[in-house]
Amino acid sequence: MSAADGQKIAMRGAGYYSANTVGAKYVIDKVGDLVVKAVAGMPRLADGQPFAVADFGAADGGTSMDMMRRLVGAVREREPNRAISITYTDLPHNDFSTLFRLSQGLLGTSTEVPLAETPGLYIFGSGTSFYRQILPDNSLSFGFSATAMHWISKRPCMIADHVQAVGATEAERAQFRAQGLRDWETILLARARELRSGGRLALANFCVDEEGRYLGHTTGVDMFDGFARHWRDLARAGRISETEYVNATFQQFYKTPDEFAAPFRDPASPVSQAGLRLENIFTMVTPCPYAEAFRVHGNAQTFARAYVPTLRSWSETVFANALDPSRPAADRSAIVDDLYSAYEADVARAPEGHRMDYVHCVTEIVKG
Amino acid sequence: MSAADGQKIAMRGAGYYSANTVGAKYVIDKVGDLVVKAVAGMPRLADGQPFAVADFGAADGGTSMDMMRRLVGAVREREPNRAISITYTDLPHNDFSTLFRLSQGLLGTSTEVPLAETPGLYIFGSGTSFYRQILPDNSLSFGFSATAMHWISKRPCMIADHVQAVGATEAERAQFRAQGLRDWETILLARARELRSGGRLALANFCVDEEGRYLGHTTGVDMFDGFARHWRDLARAGRISETEYVNATFQQFYKTPDEFAAPFRDPASPVSQAGLRLENIFTMVTPCPYAEAFRVHGNAQTFARAYVPTLRSWSETVFANALDPSRPAADRSAIVDDLYSAYEADVARAPEGHRMDYVHCVTEIVKG
Repeated sequence: MSAADGQKIAMRGAGYYSANTVGAKYVIDKVGDLVVKAVAGMPRLADGQPFAVADFGAADGGTSMDMMRRLVGAVREREPNRAISITYTDLPHNDFSTLFRLSQGLLGTSTEVPLAETPGLYIFGSGTSFYRQILPDNSLSFGFSATAMHWISKRPCMIADHVQAVGATEAERAQFRAQGLRDWETILLARARELRSGGRLALANFCVDEEGRYLGHTTGVDMFDGFARHWRDLARAGRISETEYVNATFQQFYKTPDEFAAPFRDPASPVSQAGLRLENIFTMVTPCPYAEAFRVHGNAQTFARAYVPTLRSWSETVFANALDPSRPAADRSAIVDDLYSAYEADVARAPEGHRMDYVHCVTEIVKG
Repeated sequence: MSAADGQKIAMRGAGYYSANTVGAKYVIDKVGDLVVKAVAGMPRLADGQPFAVADFGAADGGTSMDMMRRLVGAVREREPNRAISITYTDLPHNDFSTLFRLSQGLLGTSTEVPLAETPGLYIFGSGTSFYRQILPDNSLSFGFSATAMHWISKRPCMIADHVQAVGATEAERAQFRAQGLRDWETILLARARELRSGGRLALANFCVDEEGRYLGHTTGVDMFDGFARHWRDLARAGRISETEYVNATFQQFYKTPDEFAAPFRDPASPVSQAGLRLENIFTMVTPCPYAEAFRVHGNAQTFARAYVPTLRSWSETVFANALDPSRPAADRSAIVDDLYSAYEADVARAPEGHRMDYVHCVTEIVKG
């Protein structure tokens, strides 16, 4: 079982993801404060053992690079000569070359010393789904993940008249919820095997928060309703088939804080039995940087042109893969282009309320 | 310093390299016999320590996959529950996605259980040049490399009237030799830090053997002379400039067995001082499978059409990168196509003696 089952999850390559996800970096920087504090209180390792770090679902590693510098700094402050490894994980088709190039300073315009130049730091990639064990037993000191674990391991069904579980029928949503809860347990049990005793996880995941907010749904406008409406328009216009319309179903589920916490609250659960303890949980909303910029500049056209590409960076493969594979590639591209053009025109016409605020649930987990 | 300095070394992606390098796999299978025997005699690791394997310069990992299965089998025969890691290393722009997909059985038509499905086996990539330390101190149990370390870290000069050091002037060749010997020491010292005490290296590298044979030079016909002649023809015809002609210089040096052995024979050398000992060294010639097939089928055209693409798989970037970057991409492709077309026509016209026999020097090295 892997997250590649059922739906091909992919991001655009060569740094596109990082450059268009300013908000994602903002979240990671915030979590970095917790990480640095946590590292300072961790038990020391035996001599010769590397302090092993992993970033689960790292994409090109760009958004977490500064946090990794801080984490490495925090380890070295206590132990200047401790060897450190960082394993960046993602699905096998992830762009690991961009990741390695970014870490070695071969891409981008940063004037900082490249992360990979840090003495005694060893960087690895693993093209293995986080639904499997990725690292050897009892080897991981610090696991990190941001904005990745809402991708469930498979779609339990297609969502007939919407694109995401948030807009599904009750019956559809129940199936997505069941899959999401099973997957969360699978993720945690794999991490429990990997973690050393005293090792930690800091995970920032998309959620539905205590006030019912979620990604792109913090005002009267709902981003996923927007996707669904424009996709439905293409179906009504005969541009896409009914099957193609239905197949655009995000392989995602946003859990609530209670759902994240549930396995830890039950001392008999496999997760508790595996030694994992929830030390801290809270939600946070990260203001959409494009909507914030719009408040300053006030130009709806400019806003729409900056905003929609960031939506596109993580969503377009869902629509592209929903299309009949027998269509010529140019035809598929044109349909996807039309979807985002319609979305962009919509935003430019009526920009108020459009904002992709991030809504995260942050969990700090310790292995006893 | 990395092998990416000076010359961009790249292979074609998506399994192309493996599928066209039957000979490379043959060499690795032979070395596999030594590897399996060596593993059986290695000191046992402490509990909880993974048996760490690395393949240095692994490309897409396809040619060494069967050997890795045997190595994993040999470790598990002694210790059924020993965790094993395999780190595949190559330059950052290597196609790691293909590597991960091959190991997970997502490419190719193999009916075997995918390597990555082996319980307790963890697979990683590292986009780090083997001229650097890639793994933490004292962590590596078994390092392997095949047909990779003839790529030197930089070109000390361009070869004015040939493409490879084997056809260079004495003065040019002396510079390549000096670079190659320095690089060999750098490679060995990095591996000495990575290896555990009792850890081993099995390296199969291109060489000039005791009889003066080397890759594509085991008969009266010399493959590199062939490249040089056809490239020179393009210069004489005005198709490429003098600078482009000179810039096609392989960033390679083939050492002799004596040159491979030299650092080990001097007990005062940094390599000996670092604890490395040469346990076994020999040369081997691997018959070119395309030339052998030609002996059976006798069709020169068929031979040329199968033979030249395998040359192209590892050599074409040298010619493509020698061309003025201001040329349109289509122009560059057309020139490179013409080079290999001319080579192919040449082989089809006079096939006798054309054969890319591999000439390897195998070294087995132990850290005391």
